[in-house]
Amino acid sequence: MKKYRLLTPGPTQVPEKALLAMAKQVTHHRTPEFEALYHAVTQGLKEIFQTSGDILLLAGSGTAAMEASVTNFLSPGEKALVLASGKFSERWRDICSVYKIEPILYEVPWGERFNPAEVSHYLMQYPDIKAVFGTLCETSTGVGHDIKGIARMIAETDALFIVDGISAVGAVECRMDRWGIDILAVGAQKALMGLPGLAILGISEKAWQKSEKTKRQAFYFDLSKYRDCGRQSTTPFTPPKSLMESLALNVDALLKEGIENVWIRTANLAAAFRAGLQRISVRLTTPYPSDAMTAAYIPEEVDAKRFMKILENRFGIKFAGGQGIFKGKIFRMAHFGIIDECDILGILAAIEMTLKMLGCKVTLGSAVAAAESVLMEGDVEQGNQAKNSLCP
Amino acid sequence: MKKYRLLTPGPTQVPEKALLAMAKQVTHHRTPEFEALYHAVTQGLKEIFQTSGDILLLAGSGTAAMEASVTNFLSPGEKALVLASGKFSERWRDICSVYKIEPILYEVPWGERFNPAEVSHYLMQYPDIKAVFGTLCETSTGVGHDIKGIARMIAETDALFIVDGISAVGAVECRMDRWGIDILAVGAQKALMGLPGLAILGISEKAWQKSEKTKRQAFYFDLSKYRDCGRQSTTPFTPPKSLMESLALNVDALLKEGIENVWIRTANLAAAFRAGLQRISVRLTTPYPSDAMTAAYIPEEVDAKRFMKILENRFGIKFAGGQGIFKGKIFRMAHFGIIDECDILGILAAIEMTLKMLGCKVTLGSAVAAAESVLMEGDVEQGNQAKNSLCP
Repeated sequence: MKKYRLLTPGPTQVPEKALLAMAKQVTHHRTPEFEALYHAVTQGLKEIFQTSGDILLLAGSGTAAMEASVTNFLSPGEKALVLASGKFSERWRDICSVYKIEPILYEVPWGERFNPAEVSHYLMQYPDIKAVFGTLCETSTGVGHDIKGIARMIAETDALFIVDGISAVGAVECRMDRWGIDILAVGAQKALMGLPGLAILGISEKAWQKSEKTKRQAFYFDLSKYRDCGRQSTTPFTPPKSLMESLALNVDALLKEGIENVWIRTANLAAAFRAGLQRISVRLTTPYPSDAMTAAYIPEEVDAKRFMKILENRFGIKFAGGQGIFKGKIFRMAHFGIIDECDILGILAAIEMTLKMLGCKVTLGSAVAAAESVLMEGDVEQGNQAKNSLCP
Repeated sequence: MKKYRLLTPGPTQVPEKALLAMAKQVTHHRTPEFEALYHAVTQGLKEIFQTSGDILLLAGSGTAAMEASVTNFLSPGEKALVLASGKFSERWRDICSVYKIEPILYEVPWGERFNPAEVSHYLMQYPDIKAVFGTLCETSTGVGHDIKGIARMIAETDALFIVDGISAVGAVECRMDRWGIDILAVGAQKALMGLPGLAILGISEKAWQKSEKTKRQAFYFDLSKYRDCGRQSTTPFTPPKSLMESLALNVDALLKEGIENVWIRTANLAAAFRAGLQRISVRLTTPYPSDAMTAAYIPEEVDAKRFMKILENRFGIKFAGGQGIFKGKIFRMAHFGIIDECDILGILAAIEMTLKMLGCKVTLGSAVAAAESVLMEGDVEQGNQAKNSLCP
């Protein structure tokens, strides 16, 4: 009878409807029925990505989308600016290195944020930078980067802005076209609440133009094939059709709520959760948290392994732990998907109890009370339709 | 109330148990539970591949496995012999070209088979051939190639034998280690009855040794990462865990029946189906059909589109059509998976009726009778345990 609560910043819990779609018998993908599905899901994703560019779907993990974002748009020997601060943004550097693209690193300590003015500085110093690699939400640190501000600096140049939006697109504000993102890489298993195995790319016209002049070394990741097939509502290789069908239901649900309302809802949950943590002196890893997730230190006086174990064994709460320099020091939790107010409150209470059991000074109920206050503030805010529609 | 029968040579119908596993809530993949799943499914696949080498699982289509089979084992400028005769074997040539590997083509007309002696001849003529690319079942033509015979020729050299087994491993005899296949690429959605989106590779020690000396240009497809993680029962990138869980059930079922019994069962179904077609003068595309599938010409006097349409609309039968030079001329049907005797008989009857409706001379019941005779012959054959266990 153990209840399992998957709260990691991806994969996340999949809505029941989308799960049941996975149990449908497989049908063939070279059919008008598949074309209609493909068309519907890519149209819906355009709205979520806020783009009128192409949406491409690849069978693969988020890293597949990242690699395709490199090899289709940069030739060996070209320079790229990599904004590196955390496990996933550092992956951009690693992929560039494999393809002999020269990564120029703008690094800040894990938990810090990149300064748009500094990005501009790099672009002036190296006018031959062909692309800038950024990260909307660095899942290893919980930082929400200022993609809008950075995009403004890049827009004045010929460089492409290539953004890993894997763990946050669909959860937090991200306006691909308006902000000036050229390539946006996303995984289905994060804020889009799909099952792992499907990667999604948004591609701008500026990116396609650069792609034409690029020496590509790719077959499966040759995105021009996906574009050309995609414009006929089909795919170059056998698509993971069931994963797409399931995702299509989530896309519909997000758009029915309204993508901006989803962003507000997620932000409210994040604010409430953090107010709760703050009340019991649990520190965040960063002053710039993405609303897609929270990463916070496990109090030093506490045995981190026991903390995670009690939460999992007694309360069924599955957080992600830390990676790299944060290993054994932090926990990470998503705010996107079907995690709701009642979940957030229960989880805060479980954290209170766990810390108390492990000898911390905690006033039981205090974190929960702080979160409740934040959630009730929202109720009287104007225009907060999202939450009202959830708790009518 | 329309009943849909997916009979294409992949994707194929997924057993109910495996479908229901897809509807289970997602759980995290960095857990002991995932490690146990990973271990179990790769161990089971070793038995199906008949190898003691490494089994690697990639999120991607079968083509992803093919590309990884090229880029990890051949350096730019090296020569490879490509046995090309059909849409899928020609893909080996295309992938080699992308990676600047020099493909030497041994081509035979679509529907024909490669001669092992000729392969040996090529290997002697070009002693610097580093790998031979073969195809167990060429899905576009229905040909079952003599992989065992070809392997024998290659075993005497230092060249690797890299085989696309995507549409037939698990359906027909294929003994990776004993025959001397170094790399075997498979897709989950064929004889393994999984959903599309998961690719599987078997890798020999000889292949790993060559890989160490290879100039690799890959990140997502860098198989050394999958090997090193895999030996710890984990994966380098977020795995499509639900697809693996579902596949694990099919692997169990196949091994419970016994993989050799599965081969016999599939061969019996193929023989029965072909005897039926022959009786009504429907010609195969090849004298060397793989038992994984049958590809046959739609009689010339018949409108091919109407033939396919009647089968689909009236009988719910979804065959694959032809590709390339066979487009509009043939139909293709799988014999693997949960397609059984009763299906085969019903399908033959539907073909009889459809041909008759379209003006062909067909004695109703004759194809079915021929198939029945073949299936009943099997009953008195010694050691045919597979069929007996299916029809006790």
